[in-house]
Amino acid sequence: MIEYRNLRIAILGGGSVGAQVAALLLEHGDELASRAGAGLELIGVAVRNVGAKRTPSIPRELLTDDPASLNSGADIITANKALLATHGPELFEAAEQVGAQLYYEAAVGGAIPIIRPLRDSLAGDRVKRILGIVNGTTNYILDLMEREGASLEDALAKATELGYAEADPTADIEGYDAAQKVAILASLAFHTNIPLDAVHREGITSVTIDQVESARRAGYVVKLLAICERLTNPETGEDGVSARVYPALIPANHPLAAVHGANNAVFIEAEAAGNLMFYGAGAGGLQTASAVLGDLVSAARRHVIGGPGVAESTHANLPVLPISSITTRYQITLQVADRPGVLAAIASLFSEHGVSVEALTQSAGLGTSDPDATATLVIGTHEATESALAATVQALAGHEVVRTVVSVLRVEGL
Amino acid sequence: MIEYRNLRIAILGGGSVGAQVAALLLEHGDELASRAGAGLELIGVAVRNVGAKRTPSIPRELLTDDPASLNSGADIITANKALLATHGPELFEAAEQVGAQLYYEAAVGGAIPIIRPLRDSLAGDRVKRILGIVNGTTNYILDLMEREGASLEDALAKATELGYAEADPTADIEGYDAAQKVAILASLAFHTNIPLDAVHREGITSVTIDQVESARRAGYVVKLLAICERLTNPETGEDGVSARVYPALIPANHPLAAVHGANNAVFIEAEAAGNLMFYGAGAGGLQTASAVLGDLVSAARRHVIGGPGVAESTHANLPVLPISSITTRYQITLQVADRPGVLAAIASLFSEHGVSVEALTQSAGLGTSDPDATATLVIGTHEATESALAATVQALAGHEVVRTVVSVLRVEGL
Repeated sequence: MIEYRNLRIAILGGGSVGAQVAALLLEHGDELASRAGAGLELIGVAVRNVGAKRTPSIPRELLTDDPASLNSGADIITANKALLATHGPELFEAAEQVGAQLYYEAAVGGAIPIIRPLRDSLAGDRVKRILGIVNGTTNYILDLMEREGASLEDALAKATELGYAEADPTADIEGYDAAQKVAILASLAFHTNIPLDAVHREGITSVTIDQVESARRAGYVVKLLAICERLTNPETGEDGVSARVYPALIPANHPLAAVHGANNAVFIEAEAAGNLMFYGAGAGGLQTASAVLGDLVSAARRHVIGGPGVAESTHANLPVLPISSITTRYQITLQVADRPGVLAAIASLFSEHGVSVEALTQSAGLGTSDPDATATLVIGTHEATESALAATVQALAGHEVVRTVVSVLRVEGL
Repeated sequence: MIEYRNLRIAILGGGSVGAQVAALLLEHGDELASRAGAGLELIGVAVRNVGAKRTPSIPRELLTDDPASLNSGADIITANKALLATHGPELFEAAEQVGAQLYYEAAVGGAIPIIRPLRDSLAGDRVKRILGIVNGTTNYILDLMEREGASLEDALAKATELGYAEADPTADIEGYDAAQKVAILASLAFHTNIPLDAVHREGITSVTIDQVESARRAGYVVKLLAICERLTNPETGEDGVSARVYPALIPANHPLAAVHGANNAVFIEAEAAGNLMFYGAGAGGLQTASAVLGDLVSAARRHVIGGPGVAESTHANLPVLPISSITTRYQITLQVADRPGVLAAIASLFSEHGVSVEALTQSAGLGTSDPDATATLVIGTHEATESALAATVQALAGHEVVRTVVSVLRVEGL
């Protein structure tokens, strides 16, 4: 039996992740020690209420409701994405000043290794774009709509029943959770600090079953995408970073389209590596604990052998671009008057606004004589800027042949 | 402009990977220096023939056909899977003795980060099983058979034409390349040295278009899988590791079934993390160069800051199990005499050998009176041991009602 020096570990919080980390540390201590080169001694778990029921349970003698302040110099491992997305730069700076490290593999994508591959494996490459499904709750909801024809309300109710959605689902369905994660990914991928409020955010609450079914007929799937990319600001000609979250169509044969249920996946387009995808369970106490323990072993190795940690780098320091700077494709669904000349009017309107139409499909023949007849038009565009698209949609909404602009969805992953 | 100390880099070989590494080092030197914290100075590229044409080209003054012997203490970064699979333990020991590091992210899965996630991200978890598509050539061939109904010969010819297969395709289509990679993955995942000759290996040369089409009708896809798993030796009751390569059926809705063309993917089942998948281009000079440069930046960071490297660990030291120890499901296709009593005879034969039948389908009704009539039977089994299956197949081949054992394929990923 090898004798190791012990490293002392304190856990802040005994919720689903903290309790699993404690249980795995206690259960697999010898195995982890042999991998870390040091004993990993759990000295306590600070919780609000020592009497609360936990799964798995934590031995009573380890629980305390009096969290000692963190020792100066202690490394921190966190799964707290909100903290990182909001106070990342201050945290990294504070850690650097005391020579401590901040590890956060668990903050994005649960157990999916994504922070370390971005930071280390792709350190010699240039990331061009990341498309991520980083919120399991909304993917579960959209997947249920797609696969069973459920309404958004019914799918959300089912997600709540299964514990995928919280009692107040706002953070998930309005895209706040995904926005925090994309801010973290974008900062890392582009070596640039991306403040959370620079992330453009739209949730899934306006997605309808009609949109999902019409997308399927056209060969697409609706997903809530967290996107960040390096691109050239069309106004200044300088490179910048765009970070955004919105529901979008992706082709049914894109690898992200096969991400079902509450799973997560991050699709990375890099200059040399080409397209990569990382897939797995994006949440869950046990899964997240796996990522925390991976970081813990890394931190322990660093303590035993000394040396480099995971210092953050914002050396590129690119400007963060607003949503109006990006170009993408769009799918626009309209209810229009069903009479001769309507197609030409709509086509001219797109053309006047500099938006090129790629495909146009209609649900019923245009050109009846009933003045109240209505037809549905689905228009797919070539790449256009957000501002050109916004002006087009505004003009469509005010045009006399258009009854309703039913939906406007971006198309990604082509 | 920050002044960095320079690290000297020599490249052995100026083939598709070496030339790309050189080009990226020369082109992105400043950017890489800011990530590594050190200048990365390319001092030379040792090649067999300095006059050979290379893509991309390497400045003439960097080329030499006189490779200086490696400095004692220099870190090594390699994409050479054959070397690692054959001489891994000696290499790691030699490196450890001079305090050098051996990096090999590029050896498996090209640009796909898989070595670092296994070594670091999953360091706090226990891998149960890995199913990998780690050879792009054979995946391209099987995918073409599946998607266009091409024969194996035609698909191989197309792969050769496109440069996916080499003039002598043996290493790919006979599974040698995949066997080297699974030996590396298994050693890393199970902290156990897995010699290459302990890997059970079957290639794709006996896969027929009939098998592929019959698999599709049954809801499966044929893939060349590299598999390693921790399991209990049924004879001794002790844990061990099995590593093997063979063509197998996987369900059409398994994430690996969506890996098309020459892409690679590695699907990992871990105790806490659950199922993870890593996907991307598995080969190509530029893609592999991305992985080499990621290792290079890691190595440079270690030199600048000092500290821990990537020491290999074989602390678990599990026994390596032979193929006869594994259990899996099988799909067996038979040509049988088409007369009454045949189904019962076949069913009894499976039962006598302890192999439980899950599903049986037949191409034509059994029970005609023509003594020469032949029917096709496809039998899916529940989990059975390789030895029980082998005995069953031998008995089938010798049974008077069986005309031919058309194919025996394992079923994985259920």
